[in-house]
Amino acid sequence: MSEFKFIENGSVTSVPGFKACGVTCGLKKSGNPDMALVFAEKPANFAGVFTSCVFAAAPVRICQKKVRSSEKAQAFIINSGNANACTGASGLANAEKMCDMTAGKLNIDPESVLVASTGRIGVQMPMDIIEKGINLAVANLASDGGNQAAQAIMTTDTVPKACAVSVEIAGKTVTIGAICKGVGMIDPQMTTAPHATMICCITTDAVCSNALLEKLVSENADNSFNRITVDGDMSTNDTCVIFANGNSGVVLEENSADTAKFQAALLALMQNLAHKQVMDGEGATKFVAIEVDGAPDKESAKRLAEAVANSLLCKTAWFGCDPNWGRIIAALGYAGVKFDPDKVDVFYDDKIVVAKGGDAGTPEAELAEILKNREFTVKVHLNQGNGEYWVWTSDVSYEYVKINAEYHT
Amino acid sequence: MSEFKFIENGSVTSVPGFKACGVTCGLKKSGNPDMALVFAEKPANFAGVFTSCVFAAAPVRICQKKVRSSEKAQAFIINSGNANACTGASGLANAEKMCDMTAGKLNIDPESVLVASTGRIGVQMPMDIIEKGINLAVANLASDGGNQAAQAIMTTDTVPKACAVSVEIAGKTVTIGAICKGVGMIDPQMTTAPHATMICCITTDAVCSNALLEKLVSENADNSFNRITVDGDMSTNDTCVIFANGNSGVVLEENSADTAKFQAALLALMQNLAHKQVMDGEGATKFVAIEVDGAPDKESAKRLAEAVANSLLCKTAWFGCDPNWGRIIAALGYAGVKFDPDKVDVFYDDKIVVAKGGDAGTPEAELAEILKNREFTVKVHLNQGNGEYWVWTSDVSYEYVKINAEYHT
Repeated sequence: MSEFKFIENGSVTSVPGFKACGVTCGLKKSGNPDMALVFAEKPANFAGVFTSCVFAAAPVRICQKKVRSSEKAQAFIINSGNANACTGASGLANAEKMCDMTAGKLNIDPESVLVASTGRIGVQMPMDIIEKGINLAVANLASDGGNQAAQAIMTTDTVPKACAVSVEIAGKTVTIGAICKGVGMIDPQMTTAPHATMICCITTDAVCSNALLEKLVSENADNSFNRITVDGDMSTNDTCVIFANGNSGVVLEENSADTAKFQAALLALMQNLAHKQVMDGEGATKFVAIEVDGAPDKESAKRLAEAVANSLLCKTAWFGCDPNWGRIIAALGYAGVKFDPDKVDVFYDDKIVVAKGGDAGTPEAELAEILKNREFTVKVHLNQGNGEYWVWTSDVSYEYVKINAEYHT
Repeated sequence: MSEFKFIENGSVTSVPGFKACGVTCGLKKSGNPDMALVFAEKPANFAGVFTSCVFAAAPVRICQKKVRSSEKAQAFIINSGNANACTGASGLANAEKMCDMTAGKLNIDPESVLVASTGRIGVQMPMDIIEKGINLAVANLASDGGNQAAQAIMTTDTVPKACAVSVEIAGKTVTIGAICKGVGMIDPQMTTAPHATMICCITTDAVCSNALLEKLVSENADNSFNRITVDGDMSTNDTCVIFANGNSGVVLEENSADTAKFQAALLALMQNLAHKQVMDGEGATKFVAIEVDGAPDKESAKRLAEAVANSLLCKTAWFGCDPNWGRIIAALGYAGVKFDPDKVDVFYDDKIVVAKGGDAGTPEAELAEILKNREFTVKVHLNQGNGEYWVWTSDVSYEYVKINAEYHT
């Protein structure tokens, strides 16, 4: 039934007219790739959604300005290893300079260059290293460089994250590609922007206005990136940018059937990336979908789902493969939603664990089998309304603590 | 200047007219003590504050009813090893039965018996074991049994928690004693009740109405138990009860100077217990005070302090003795409070780490020395208002994960 299909090894460069690369300039002590560049051969329409953190990083502020002031964008320069956050006026100047340097090397308008950074907060960018990196990146742009770019934006990610889909619209093929990173500082509290230490670059060859691109990415973020939480921490640097170069000739207009098709394909792509982020969540051994329905309203369902997903006690129980449903009940109970506890049923996958607010009697061994799986679902039926919501989360393991106790030093 | 003093090895039985005990009836597999009884030799005035969890446990519901319907209370029966939560009508009947059995053995009015339970959620009380325990407890009541009672209510606590203070009022001595437990499922989200898997019993010989007792305990809870968070999880079973037998002859009346003295002493006692809870927080290696001032208002300061205290990334950094202030800044930034980031200063104890929203330049080694201490303070000066708030929290360690991944199985 789906009208789109995933492209094997797909990425931003699966879309005709885009080049990319990932290079090593020396920002990371590890010597791993740390600078990526995505380039549209001709100026493209674009849009972006960003963190709503009060301490939004310098590159975020630059991009927020450009999505309002620039008609077109053509390049996206991204570094890992330094977040350029809490770096004051020098940080802002350096982020601007990164755009200018990239524009100079590519011989394009500086106003058409976007920038993102991820890594350590509060340290000024070493601009000599940055300059070297930008020169290298421009020299290495390639029409198959998307997966290298995905590698260069990783921080605590253990695998690069990229994907692409194609969709038939009006007899033509539209392609959408993406790269993203982010497995920690991931939390779904916001409603109009993705929020996670996540950086995502999406490319497409659809013909689409900046305003409609923003609408489509925002709406889809609410059903993908905004549904995931690893640790309940939102980042200073979250950035999700989309470029549309129009090469396919397929025109998207507001509220059309064609646009609905495109949006569904874009959602599948963004959900695929969100799924990959949670699967690679820092130290994660479990992928857990929390599905709440029958709540008084959607907002209530959201609060309930997020309370369970962010409960440290639930997350550690899942790590221990422990079907301790009392912790789920406790989290539902403190979520700040009024409901009748005696109507609540809870399932692990298809096994009932709580019936009408009490133990359903399913043998613990059967439940424990489900909890041993890499992925499972916690379903909460409140049976007192039509509000629904779901989120994806991970467990909290020894490895999570290790990664985050030792990240800095 | 303080008009009260702490009593060495103090507990509920430091107050004349109260007896207590802790016994082993077999609810805990470990064979550790699991039932406590606190007894007032004559019917006492009383009050209580409780969890606001939707799934409030059966004993909590019984107590909530009795604080409205009973004039006096005389006994408090508490078991560990089973929470009697999510146990439906049978659970409620069993909680009532615990009161009735205790009253029968003590030959007092069943309406004057309170009950609390802590432990596993969703399992019916084994009433034969309970009955044995109640018989044992009544037989073992002693005028120096408070510290044994503190031991019997422990779950994942590693040390029993008790204390007592005496205060001179109107030329007489008033004593206040307490026992409490709770080191996990601890979170400060609520405003009118303590919230933690905490059970606290306070005794005093002041003369005080039930209404004033409730006011004093509620207000003080907002400045003690409600200020602590271990894991951000509130429990189904939180209960804090106070008994006043009037033996001292010191009369407390609303808004009097004597009552202010009493309240200050009671606050010191409750803060002492709250401090003990955080120090013994599950797997905790750090006690961290978060102090926010200069916020637009108190509510903003509270949200900011709690965001930092509940941030998994901050908590794991502290465990790693890592002065990674970027995580503090990120948590402040997503707390949902609007403020000017460029005015914010942050200190670890007396060392400045963030000045006007950016790195203050204090050598990392100096900061790391502070982070190696068992206790330290994170001070956040927003410099844009008069709102203040503080909370106490702990770090998240490997041991925290171990305790909570392995608690059930």
